[in-house]
Amino acid sequence: MNDSAKNYNYVIGVDMGGTKILAALVDRNGKILAREKKRVEDHSVKAILGSVVECVNSVCEQAGAKKEQVGGIGIGAPGTLDFETGAVLFAPNIHWRNVPLRALLEKEVGIKTFVDNDVNIGTLGEHTYGVGKGTKDAIGMFIGTGIGGGIILGGKLFYGFNKTAGEIGHMVLEPGGPKCGCGNRGCLEALASRSAIARRVWKAVQKGKRTAVAGLVKKEQEIVSGVLAEAVKKKDRIAIKSLEKAAKYIGIAIGGLINVVNPEMFILGGGVMEALSPMMLPLIRDHAKKNSFPHCFKGIKICAAKLGDDAGVLGGAALAWSKVAGNP
Amino acid sequence: MNDSAKNYNYVIGVDMGGTKILAALVDRNGKILAREKKRVEDHSVKAILGSVVECVNSVCEQAGAKKEQVGGIGIGAPGTLDFETGAVLFAPNIHWRNVPLRALLEKEVGIKTFVDNDVNIGTLGEHTYGVGKGTKDAIGMFIGTGIGGGIILGGKLFYGFNKTAGEIGHMVLEPGGPKCGCGNRGCLEALASRSAIARRVWKAVQKGKRTAVAGLVKKEQEIVSGVLAEAVKKKDRIAIKSLEKAAKYIGIAIGGLINVVNPEMFILGGGVMEALSPMMLPLIRDHAKKNSFPHCFKGIKICAAKLGDDAGVLGGAALAWSKVAGNP
Repeated sequence: MNDSAKNYNYVIGVDMGGTKILAALVDRNGKILAREKKRVEDHSVKAILGSVVECVNSVCEQAGAKKEQVGGIGIGAPGTLDFETGAVLFAPNIHWRNVPLRALLEKEVGIKTFVDNDVNIGTLGEHTYGVGKGTKDAIGMFIGTGIGGGIILGGKLFYGFNKTAGEIGHMVLEPGGPKCGCGNRGCLEALASRSAIARRVWKAVQKGKRTAVAGLVKKEQEIVSGVLAEAVKKKDRIAIKSLEKAAKYIGIAIGGLINVVNPEMFILGGGVMEALSPMMLPLIRDHAKKNSFPHCFKGIKICAAKLGDDAGVLGGAALAWSKVAGNP
Repeated sequence: MNDSAKNYNYVIGVDMGGTKILAALVDRNGKILAREKKRVEDHSVKAILGSVVECVNSVCEQAGAKKEQVGGIGIGAPGTLDFETGAVLFAPNIHWRNVPLRALLEKEVGIKTFVDNDVNIGTLGEHTYGVGKGTKDAIGMFIGTGIGGGIILGGKLFYGFNKTAGEIGHMVLEPGGPKCGCGNRGCLEALASRSAIARRVWKAVQKGKRTAVAGLVKKEQEIVSGVLAEAVKKKDRIAIKSLEKAAKYIGIAIGGLINVVNPEMFILGGGVMEALSPMMLPLIRDHAKKNSFPHCFKGIKICAAKLGDDAGVLGGAALAWSKVAGNP
C-alpha cells in the first residue's frame, strides 16, 4: 500500500450492462454504503457514459463521500477490451467500437478508473466477497443467454497470453454438434446456455408436443430462465429434459477442467443458475464427477454464486481496491 | 539462493520409466556433463531403486563430481504421487503401491531428492531448456500410448487443488464416444492417443481393407509410432485417416484450452509427435485455429518438443535447481 492509498475510504464499483447500469460505493470491508441503478434505453456512448457519471455522482452524494476519498472506480464492461488503454474494442450488444472508456470516465469524474470485462469482474466479486471468499484458485461460469467465464489463480484474475482467458462457453464438447452464435459447432454455449435450452424447448412446442411452456410464451425469445423455472415447477418433462441436457454438458465441461486445471472451486452464476440452481447444481455435480478422475474431483467445490446483481459492483470494487491499495 | 546453495555445481536429473532409467549430471546452465541409462527388466522396488542408484553413482564418477557438489536429485516417476512425502502412491505400469521413493533414494545416495510425475517433469524440461524456454505460461502434451500433460503458469509447474492438474488426456471431447482406458467414454486419450490411432487402423486390417500396416505388423500392439510413420511414408490412406482424426481431436482440445486458459505455448511431445510431427503439427494447428476465437488464438505457439529423451532428465535437473537454488 502506498502512502496516498491509506487516505482512501472508498472505491466505486460499476456494472455496465446492455439493459442497466449499477453502481455502488464500497468500503474497505466490501460493505456497500450506497447504490444507484439506471435503465439503459439508448446505447450511444454519450447516453451510457452520462448514466455511469450520474450513478457515480449519486452514490457519492448519498453517502456524503468526497471524490478525494474515493480511491478508484472499477468498471465491468461487456465485449472485448484493450487492457492497456482501458478501451472497449468491440461490444456487440451495445454496438460500441473503440470507445476509450477509461479515459472518458476519468475525464468526466476525475477518479482513477480500472476497466475489465463483465464476466471477469463478476468472478472477482464472487471470489473476493461472495461464495469463493478464501479460495485460491476458482473458475466462474455465468450461464445466461450465453456462457461466459473468468479464472482466478493464486487469488488473482488470470488473463493468459492474449488477455482473453475464460471463454468457457466456447470449448467444443460435441464436434459437429449444434451451431453456436460464434460460428463454430458444438460449443458449450450452443449446448447449455439459456438460448440453447430454449431452442430445444421451442422445437418441441413447434412440433406440437405437450409442454407447459406453450401456455407461458408466444415465441422462442420469451423462454427466459423464469419461464423455465415455472415450467419445472409444473413438472414439465420437455423443459426438464432440456435443462438436464444442459446440466450434463456443463458437468462435462467442469469435469474436463477439474482434470486439467483442478481449481478449488467452480462458481456458477447467471440467469439460469439464479432461477434453477436447486435443480441444476446436483445434476451438474453428478456429471462433473462422472467426467473426472476421483483423485482429481475429491474436495473440489461446485457452488452457486451468491451475490446476484451485486457480483458486478462488488467485483468492480475488488478490482479498484486491488489496484489502489493491494487486496482489500 | 541460500549460502550453501552457492557451493553446488551440479544437480542430477532422473527419468524413471517402466522400460528404462535415464540419469544425467547437469550444471547450472543446463548442460549435460554425463549420462547413464539402464534397461528395466524387473519392476520390483529393489531392482528399480538399485538401477537408479547405479545411474546416479555412474554420472558422478564419469564427471569426477563429488556428492557434496551435487545440490539435489530431481526425479520423474510414473503414476500418482504424494507430493508431501515424495512417495509413489500408485504406478500401474511398474506395479508399485505406496513406495517412499524420496526417502529410499535419499537414504541410499545421501543427496536431497525431489520427486514429481514424469509428465510434469517432461513439461518442465521442455519449458526450462527446450522449445518453451522463455515462455511464461505453457501447456505440455505428451501423445504416446496414453496422453498426459503438464501445466506451467508464471514460469512454474502448476499443480491445482489436488496436485493433479494436467490430465489433458481425460477431457471428454465426444460424449458417448469410444471407451477409454480410464473407464469413461470419449476422452481425448480414447480418440487421439497412439493406442486409439492403432485401434482404428487395426479394425481396418481386420476388415481386410487395403493398408500397408497389414504387411508391417502381426497384431494391434505392434502398431507403434514408427510403424505409423512408415505407413504414412507409403501414403497409406488408412493410417493417414486415423492420424488425421487424432490431429483433429488434439486440435479441438488445444482450441478449447486456448479459449479457456490461453497459454503462450503448447508443447507437443511423446512417441506420436516424435515420429510424425511434420505431418501432425500443421493439422493440429489448423484444428486448434478452427476451434478457438481469432483474438484468443493470435500469437499462440503450438510446437513440437525438441529435447526427446533428454526432456525427462533435464526436467528433473530443472526441478532440483528450482528447489535448491532458485531457478537456474
